[in-house]
Amino acid sequence: MTHSYSRNIGQSVSRLLITMGDPAGIGPEIICKALTGKELDRFSRYGVIGLVDALSSTAEKMGRRVRFRSVATPEEMFLPAGNEIPVLEPDGLEVGHWEPGIAQAVTGEIAFRCITTAIEVALAGQCDAVVTAPICKESLHKAGHGEYAGHTEIFTRLTGAKSTALMLISGKFRVAHVTNHVALRETCGMVKRQRVFDVIRLTNNALARIDGKPPRIAVASYNPHAGESGLFGREEIEEIEPAVQEAQRAGIQVSGPFPPDSLFPQMLGGRYEGIVAMYHDQGHIAFKMHCFRYSSDLQEWGEVAGVNVTLGLPIIRTSVAHGTAFDLVGTGKASERSLLDAIEIARLLAERQGRDK
Amino acid sequence: MTHSYSRNIGQSVSRLLITMGDPAGIGPEIICKALTGKELDRFSRYGVIGLVDALSSTAEKMGRRVRFRSVATPEEMFLPAGNEIPVLEPDGLEVGHWEPGIAQAVTGEIAFRCITTAIEVALAGQCDAVVTAPICKESLHKAGHGEYAGHTEIFTRLTGAKSTALMLISGKFRVAHVTNHVALRETCGMVKRQRVFDVIRLTNNALARIDGKPPRIAVASYNPHAGESGLFGREEIEEIEPAVQEAQRAGIQVSGPFPPDSLFPQMLGGRYEGIVAMYHDQGHIAFKMHCFRYSSDLQEWGEVAGVNVTLGLPIIRTSVAHGTAFDLVGTGKASERSLLDAIEIARLLAERQGRDK
Repeated sequence: MTHSYSRNIGQSVSRLLITMGDPAGIGPEIICKALTGKELDRFSRYGVIGLVDALSSTAEKMGRRVRFRSVATPEEMFLPAGNEIPVLEPDGLEVGHWEPGIAQAVTGEIAFRCITTAIEVALAGQCDAVVTAPICKESLHKAGHGEYAGHTEIFTRLTGAKSTALMLISGKFRVAHVTNHVALRETCGMVKRQRVFDVIRLTNNALARIDGKPPRIAVASYNPHAGESGLFGREEIEEIEPAVQEAQRAGIQVSGPFPPDSLFPQMLGGRYEGIVAMYHDQGHIAFKMHCFRYSSDLQEWGEVAGVNVTLGLPIIRTSVAHGTAFDLVGTGKASERSLLDAIEIARLLAERQGRDK
Repeated sequence: MTHSYSRNIGQSVSRLLITMGDPAGIGPEIICKALTGKELDRFSRYGVIGLVDALSSTAEKMGRRVRFRSVATPEEMFLPAGNEIPVLEPDGLEVGHWEPGIAQAVTGEIAFRCITTAIEVALAGQCDAVVTAPICKESLHKAGHGEYAGHTEIFTRLTGAKSTALMLISGKFRVAHVTNHVALRETCGMVKRQRVFDVIRLTNNALARIDGKPPRIAVASYNPHAGESGLFGREEIEEIEPAVQEAQRAGIQVSGPFPPDSLFPQMLGGRYEGIVAMYHDQGHIAFKMHCFRYSSDLQEWGEVAGVNVTLGLPIIRTSVAHGTAFDLVGTGKASERSLLDAIEIARLLAERQGRDK
């Protein structure tokens, strides 16, 4: 991560739970790499929800010195146990044959059950944060869980959260979204005063924890040129401005709405610590311009960084910002960068949430 | 410009007409800098539509060795005349008092008349391309021309063009827009098969001229995740895919629709030469992430590059991609980078259009 976060002395030890993701993807590989790398925070404790066999055989193939140890209950997960990583398998899971590198029902079900198990452990207070490795939407669909667009929706539903938001983070780049996986034509009816206010508040709380101080937040407009005073749309005047004013009255350092195109470079230049975006691609386009690099020579992604955080859950959940990368499976080329960043953000959120209590 | 374009021997001499823009903005300054800099192409001929006094006094204040010479008719503009730049003032223009660095009716009217005069000269075939310096929308409005959102709309209306599109260019980054200055909620009704096809065709023609070879074009989806097979919207299935297929049948190297967030880094990695975006901010967010830099120390824009091209006009028109920057007026800090890039793109379009005839 280009941005570095400080570690204060005397902070509590965090119990970070990692889900394996779809075992046909790069999840097992990046977990092995992250847990054996020099950058891993040694003060935190780690556990994995996944398949011991899949993780162990991946580590062996890669020649990584990491041992995974099966545990029977969540209570055994974060006990100090040398260099062994405890792994809890989802209860009663029947693991059939599966192929690496493709979408399939078997691995979709495994991935789904790892997530539901992690949510149960977290809701029971048996870990401090959940960090998720990538899943495959097509595999989920084949396993009969097609009603979920992704992790964010599963965590929102199964934790009973009322108002959540997807935030993307990579160093100084932080953006939270008012709407997410919906048709663009439907978003205009969803950019509402209360929802915009909720996402500003969630963004403020999360960034205050990550940075250890109150952030300066800018709110993007929904329409181009912030609507040109109502000429190109009235969402700014009727919904977004009142929400910003309400948040200001609540003591949040927030301004806007501003035209989104010039806002993201201003955040990178240090003018703001976070941006609230109105729709999925408004935030995602800027995010991937910031931290995704495509290599033409190799015809593949050269660099894929960043963290996905679900704000507003009763538990802490961060994730890699990339997919299962089926084409990379078995090549040993998958980067653990994004997973390490997700672990770091989870740790910061967990420690400072604990401190705030 | 990070990307460099080659110059072929034996090409014709282009007559490039530059409009001064709003004289209260940085237009006069960047024109003086561009026309006296080492990077200016010496094979082209230049003329300015503007005010001789404003240009001359700016050059003097900046200590730039450039002399502006008043001419009475367009015919006198591109005659070789030493190091003097010919300037044509709009016919019968009454120049009252005006203040630098603010929006006002007087300079809005001057800017508008410079544009209309340039369009007349270009339509009469008395220049090969028009390059525009920035105008101020508020000044235009105060001068009674508030019906125009900007240059693109003025050029489209006054040249009688049927289907135009705004393209942004900065080196390897090129994006054309299917919709432009409208409320986002209205764009869903404007993403239509014929319009998408038209913009693909215009993009293909322009990039073939700029690069001297047929481009590979990718089309962005309207909805996030390209609509997930109809789950998040049907514009991809009903409008965009048929347009892409029609363009493929017409021999254009085009593919899509693809999710927009991962598409722009792929273009920068060399996978495509151009992207067709569905709405203003889809293209503009990525563009400004690519070539705008904000300096937190100075609390101002540190770098602003890029070119704006109007595709589909009966004439060639390129422009700087930034505004009047009123706060920089008189400081001498305005960069001529964007204007030089706009001159270069205009020259390439003019030469290769001339050759195609």
